[in-house]
Amino acid sequence: MKAKIYISLKDSILDPQGKTVEHALSVLGFNEVKGVRVGKYMEVMLEPAPLEQAEKSVEAMCEKLLANTVIESYRYEIES
Amino acid sequence: MKAKIYISLKDSILDPQGKTVEHALSVLGFNEVKGVRVGKYMEVMLEPAPLEQAEKSVEAMCEKLLANTVIESYRYEIES
Repeated sequence: MKAKIYISLKDSILDPQGKTVEHALSVLGFNEVKGVRVGKYMEVMLEPAPLEQAEKSVEAMCEKLLANTVIESYRYEIES
Repeated sequence: MKAKIYISLKDSILDPQGKTVEHALSVLGFNEVKGVRVGKYMEVMLEPAPLEQAEKSVEAMCEKLLANTVIESYRYEIES
């Protein structure tokens, strides 16, 4: 099974990388862009397990290693 | 409206960052992890526009700036 994990900066946290991308897009002529936030996307391949157990395990990975929960929020989907 | 863009390395491309995360997870005791791929996740806020036009515009952004299409693939969702 596969877990897709999305990690983004919390709304209240400044995102200089996003600002840079936003500026670059406007220089390229994409004037319809009003804002950009940059985050991380991870695919974690897991051994087959009951869904509940996999969810617990992915949540623990996010809390312990993948996300910095002080400034980042995460969400995930699990595909069997 | 908001575009959610997911950029990942193509399967044939080595992903040392993913390997490092995989190793760190196994050190932490997550032995069910079989592999990790790390990519980018971006949220682009757009001015309201017809869906087709927004799709074209997001695709152009990915091709021109956001993704390196030689080694990366992208997909996106647009929310109004």
